[in-house]
Amino acid sequence: MRAVVMGAGSWGTAAAKVLVDAGTETTIWARRSELADRINAEHTNADYLPGITLPDALSATSSVADALPGADVVVCAVPSQSLRANLTEWMPHVGSATTFVSLAKGVETSTLLRMSEVIAEVSGVPSGQVAVLSGPNLAREIAEGQPAATVIACTDEDRARELQLAFNTGYFRPYTNTDVIGCEIGGAVKNVIALACGMASGVGFGQNTLATIITRGLAETIRLGVAVGAQIETLAGLAGIGDLVATCSSPLSRNRTFGARLGEGATMEQAQEATNGQVAEGVKSCTSVRALADKFDVEMPLTDAVHRVCHGGVSVGDAVSSLLGRSTKPEIYD
Amino acid sequence: MRAVVMGAGSWGTAAAKVLVDAGTETTIWARRSELADRINAEHTNADYLPGITLPDALSATSSVADALPGADVVVCAVPSQSLRANLTEWMPHVGSATTFVSLAKGVETSTLLRMSEVIAEVSGVPSGQVAVLSGPNLAREIAEGQPAATVIACTDEDRARELQLAFNTGYFRPYTNTDVIGCEIGGAVKNVIALACGMASGVGFGQNTLATIITRGLAETIRLGVAVGAQIETLAGLAGIGDLVATCSSPLSRNRTFGARLGEGATMEQAQEATNGQVAEGVKSCTSVRALADKFDVEMPLTDAVHRVCHGGVSVGDAVSSLLGRSTKPEIYD
Repeated sequence: MRAVVMGAGSWGTAAAKVLVDAGTETTIWARRSELADRINAEHTNADYLPGITLPDALSATSSVADALPGADVVVCAVPSQSLRANLTEWMPHVGSATTFVSLAKGVETSTLLRMSEVIAEVSGVPSGQVAVLSGPNLAREIAEGQPAATVIACTDEDRARELQLAFNTGYFRPYTNTDVIGCEIGGAVKNVIALACGMASGVGFGQNTLATIITRGLAETIRLGVAVGAQIETLAGLAGIGDLVATCSSPLSRNRTFGARLGEGATMEQAQEATNGQVAEGVKSCTSVRALADKFDVEMPLTDAVHRVCHGGVSVGDAVSSLLGRSTKPEIYD
Repeated sequence: MRAVVMGAGSWGTAAAKVLVDAGTETTIWARRSELADRINAEHTNADYLPGITLPDALSATSSVADALPGADVVVCAVPSQSLRANLTEWMPHVGSATTFVSLAKGVETSTLLRMSEVIAEVSGVPSGQVAVLSGPNLAREIAEGQPAATVIACTDEDRARELQLAFNTGYFRPYTNTDVIGCEIGGAVKNVIALACGMASGVGFGQNTLATIITRGLAETIRLGVAVGAQIETLAGLAGIGDLVATCSSPLSRNRTFGARLGEGATMEQAQEATNGQVAEGVKSCTSVRALADKFDVEMPLTDAVHRVCHGGVSVGDAVSSLLGRSTKPEIYD
């Protein structure tokens, strides 16, 4: 089996390392030729994973035409809102029997499609050829070889098991699941909730508040997930609460960091400077997740609050106050 | 309404402060007269909440006979394995219409009873007079007035609402629930899972591993809870995943700290020295939780692993290895 990872950010690079360590022949595609050259020559990706030595067997290229032909597995590791445009460029070089694996987390803003739906639509392959990999997987820790578990979801169980072997190493353990929708909803909403956790920590709140936001965030993720066809078990599992806890707890998470800067009083532009000039995924996802919630008539107060801060000019202080309202009531879950 | 908090550890003291701040007339009972005297004279509890100023209106006593008569609400804030003996001493001074609130988290080792069951058995009051308060409530943060939510569970909803008002302040928001069993199972198991998280962090593992342990820990909490009659919604709420995340994430948690010392290679005795000479609650709870799981034929691999380390002479390294087994399989929840 030959895999190609399309995208050399931190998670794409870490996933490529996992594949090589699992014994899978792997090429990584980087948009910039300098980055590809350095991965080949120095076995490092200093921009996204400084200090990590990549395997000698990992080859890199900046040529789509070199990377894709003959690949059995195409791992999509580009930002969610760019995936459609990228994939459209890639498709002339992709074989019809190829398996796609999505690492992108988000909902396309213009269409409200999940990433696996975008892949199926653009590529024309049946949905059973599109898998999603998602779990509590901070890229840096995976690249360091720390033990982690993940979920590989595909409606075609045999394909999920093939991918499980392609990604299985001593330190990285994939579990299979057929609930693609649940994995993708968990992955999309967690970036938004991590922004909210960052905002609260930036304001100065501690672990009790973060745990409350995570709990309420899981509740609204489950409400949305169930409305669009996910299974509660998936959202209570590694790709749901697991990914949510890892992302919300880690100072390494870009969404958490971005939110913290906002909570400390920074503008959107200043927060962006604090995260390598990149806008956190949750800033874009909150718009599409909120629109999806509207479409399915689901209440998502945390997502609403994040959206108001990121796109409605509301201050973090006002958003937090509106969330920490004062009425006394029963604990409600629906 | 007059409340008395029986026990002046960190959580009992913080809860007493909340009650006073909520406008409830409150006395706190401390076993040691020096501690009671200092609370009265200096409005501090330097042993358990150093740096926190307690309200002037909080009165302390070391006399059970002074504290209890005339109390409408008795808040039980002593360690779970001591509750029966303490309560037996207290009962001659307690009126028959008194409401009990349990802050103790655990399952009695000798009987496998939950704390509310111990209270009902020893006091002879109907179960509707016994409530449980549980949530993501690290005592120090509450004492600092940071915003937090909690659950007050009682089978008698009117009584739960009375207690909600007695504890409701600007910074502390209680939600009512009738699922006493769910709150208590969540509270008992989380101390065991926090020990496991501490062990993993002591060994050097990062956020991915912690998030995986929390996810698996929630799964086994839900399995046990459902077997003994809890509602999944409670365990997916503040007293379940909320309390679990707060306790497992915080370096302030005694269970987390105790486990971390074990993970770094300390003996049980050395770990105890690192936590003010006290054995972490989870060290005792793992025995009773495991016994309860056996009784109801529920698999709890994390609890088993913690028990083997604390009471079976197994090293943390061997326990972690057995948990991070290498087989590839579907993500399983049942």
